[in-house]
Amino acid sequence: MTGLLTGIGVGPGDPDLITLKALKRLQAADLVCYPAPEVGQSLARRIAAPHIPHGLEEYAIRMPMVASRFPAAKIYDEAALRIGAALDAGRNVVVLCEGDPFFYGSFMYLYERLAKSHSVEVVPGISSPMASAAALGAPLVSRNDILTVLPAPLEDAELRARLAASDGIVIMKIGRHFARIRDLLRELGLEDDARYIEHATMENQRCLALSEVDPETVPYFSMILLHKRGEAFLEGSEL
Amino acid sequence: MTGLLTGIGVGPGDPDLITLKALKRLQAADLVCYPAPEVGQSLARRIAAPHIPHGLEEYAIRMPMVASRFPAAKIYDEAALRIGAALDAGRNVVVLCEGDPFFYGSFMYLYERLAKSHSVEVVPGISSPMASAAALGAPLVSRNDILTVLPAPLEDAELRARLAASDGIVIMKIGRHFARIRDLLRELGLEDDARYIEHATMENQRCLALSEVDPETVPYFSMILLHKRGEAFLEGSEL
Repeated sequence: MTGLLTGIGVGPGDPDLITLKALKRLQAADLVCYPAPEVGQSLARRIAAPHIPHGLEEYAIRMPMVASRFPAAKIYDEAALRIGAALDAGRNVVVLCEGDPFFYGSFMYLYERLAKSHSVEVVPGISSPMASAAALGAPLVSRNDILTVLPAPLEDAELRARLAASDGIVIMKIGRHFARIRDLLRELGLEDDARYIEHATMENQRCLALSEVDPETVPYFSMILLHKRGEAFLEGSEL
Repeated sequence: MTGLLTGIGVGPGDPDLITLKALKRLQAADLVCYPAPEVGQSLARRIAAPHIPHGLEEYAIRMPMVASRFPAAKIYDEAALRIGAALDAGRNVVVLCEGDPFFYGSFMYLYERLAKSHSVEVVPGISSPMASAAALGAPLVSRNDILTVLPAPLEDAELRARLAASDGIVIMKIGRHFARIRDLLRELGLEDDARYIEHATMENQRCLALSEVDPETVPYFSMILLHKRGEAFLEGSEL
């Protein structure tokens, strides 16, 4: 009997945003793995920490943060070999994933290496757009709205076209792109409808108007949410 | 002391896809509410059923399914009055929401009526695109991909433009629109990259190629997922 590999979403930050299903897989695991920086703590592990059984074997998949070549195929090849060997030995392996495993997650790189030869299951997680909408009290979309998720590093022309063609908008991975994104929203007359959140559901969560944000302090884990019908959407003018 | 109103996402179908946080709110509730059809069972209640404490007072917010005027303002006005009175009496109220409360959810109509006068909290839930991607073994997006969520009732020209301008695509609320959507994807040469799923994470979940689907049997709770880089995305050609 070979083991089961399960990628579990641990949610965006609050440890209580893990699902019962993910928790059960973690409690039944023989080995828990998680992505980690080259040095220091894994965010996925920190989120799941209260739920990791005492004494469970752990494997940090450490990834050098080289901007020009990330993620690195060699590290995933090695991780897949090690995880594959554990599965072949009949052990159940859980991989912790920030947010949801298949929404901008790195679990897909293990999935593509192991799913053809082993039993692999994915347990979805709470992803940051939904968690941020909840924290901001700002619905993402309703009825026949179009929702578009845009990574901030995209070029201005691309962002401008997508912003024009959508109802609900989520801009992810803001970080050092904040000032450019804010100026773009201002140019399009959308700044007042936009809401900024950083570290959603974590202890240091902050929600701000765009005008209040210091561009120098914006973390990678930040997001701008926008609904182009703005307040009308919330004021119930349609109902 | 007034009570707390919490909208909790109960996920797309599998009762184990509820979060610990939602479960805690449900266990501490004095009144549990949920949307329901005019006659018959509430889907949200069915999903959460194993977790509803025995003897907890329940309130089904019954909505006539009138296609031309849905949701109905009057019913939400009444529900908000009744829930507001419970909160004023110091009772904690939980509203069950299929999937995530703010992702095409009806909770926003209670939120807009009660959030200014009462303490209202939203607990995000697992939404169907993430659950479907997990079930299909098909990552939604990676890196700087754009994700677009499109309701199937949109017109062909709108769908065609959005399909052309995105990397990862989720088409929701398929139902009676299936044949039209399939033909559109075929016309765009995207049919082979698309994956169909119905009743994701429920006992009657089915995953099919588009060519295998009988358009006459497609339920409202069905979805098409698509990544335009298709297999290359999964085969790891980039790594």
